[in-house]
Amino acid sequence: MTPPSLARARLERQLDFIRELDGLKSVLRRTSLIDRSRLENSAEHTWHLTAMALALFEYAPAGADLGHVLEMLIVHDVVEIDAGDTFAFDKAANADKADREAAAAVRVFGLLPPDVGERLHSLWVEFEAGETPSARFANALDRLQGLIVNDAPGDGGTWRLHGVVRTEVLARMAPIETGAAELWPVVMDAVKRAVNAGQVRDD
Amino acid sequence: MTPPSLARARLERQLDFIRELDGLKSVLRRTSLIDRSRLENSAEHTWHLTAMALALFEYAPAGADLGHVLEMLIVHDVVEIDAGDTFAFDKAANADKADREAAAAVRVFGLLPPDVGERLHSLWVEFEAGETPSARFANALDRLQGLIVNDAPGDGGTWRLHGVVRTEVLARMAPIETGAAELWPVVMDAVKRAVNAGQVRDD
Repeated sequence: MTPPSLARARLERQLDFIRELDGLKSVLRRTSLIDRSRLENSAEHTWHLTAMALALFEYAPAGADLGHVLEMLIVHDVVEIDAGDTFAFDKAANADKADREAAAAVRVFGLLPPDVGERLHSLWVEFEAGETPSARFANALDRLQGLIVNDAPGDGGTWRLHGVVRTEVLARMAPIETGAAELWPVVMDAVKRAVNAGQVRDD
Repeated sequence: MTPPSLARARLERQLDFIRELDGLKSVLRRTSLIDRSRLENSAEHTWHLTAMALALFEYAPAGADLGHVLEMLIVHDVVEIDAGDTFAFDKAANADKADREAAAAVRVFGLLPPDVGERLHSLWVEFEAGETPSARFANALDRLQGLIVNDAPGDGGTWRLHGVVRTEVLARMAPIETGAAELWPVVMDAVKRAVNAGQVRDD
């Protein structure tokens, strides 16, 4: 049996991690709430993704596991506590994004006892690689959530604000075609509407 | 095979539900972020709970299932989109809380196709009943998260602001003793510290 003092030291590391996670609630994305009252933060964005996984799991690729999808989604953005949210269409900021996030993952997951930290770190690595059926579905949801909040009020959201062109949006959304093919028509319809409304430029 | 028009109608109900969920990001709790910059909302609170489940699952009761805990947590507060967040120590508001939330569950989960909606609704019912090992652990985390954000900066948080007494805090935290007994010392230490600092009145 583990001595009480060691057990408590282990628990204190877990509590440190949990307190550190609070910082994700202050990391702002470029996207805003559907009612456009304010920008969305990465913590509430992540919850939205997990709820989407519950509602849409029937569209996941063969071999995807719902529990595993949820676990990956829950940790997928915690690196932003150190690295910040990188706007999808900002080419300069995306150049060193992978390095900044990899360093953040080492620090943030390293707060935990090694066995737990390594497990959560590996979930993040799997999400980033986007190769397993569960990771492909999780990545598809991440892209789809941005599209939904951009599209819902019909104002073009960040696409219009930042002058994004049609091929950029479609390239950004490509993981949906591979990770949840039946949801691709939702993307096509939203982009077509935004182009017709002059919110996304056709290029 | 389902005809395309029926499949799309089903998907549109799922998208309606996902758009509706955005409202949870605007439901404010009484607790604030650990840095005290603003009140916490129920969407980001829920994400924090799910991450806590990943970090602390080793303390769950025998028979609890992590995936099932996550699913319950993800839906546990969506009724607040209609019913609002009810402050734990507001006796009057708590009198009709169950009725308001039950009606909200029928409406919000009813946006989904019936098979999916009934599944998510039953997760919410299981969480509220708090009887299965997974539900007991999920409820313990819900209470512990409030304690952690109240306690972390050492200012007494909502306990001090609202003049809560020691026995009220301990009664509120009781699900931790039954749903994650090894975490109970964290509660006892936090309450003792807050009482000693004059932030929670001893009664």
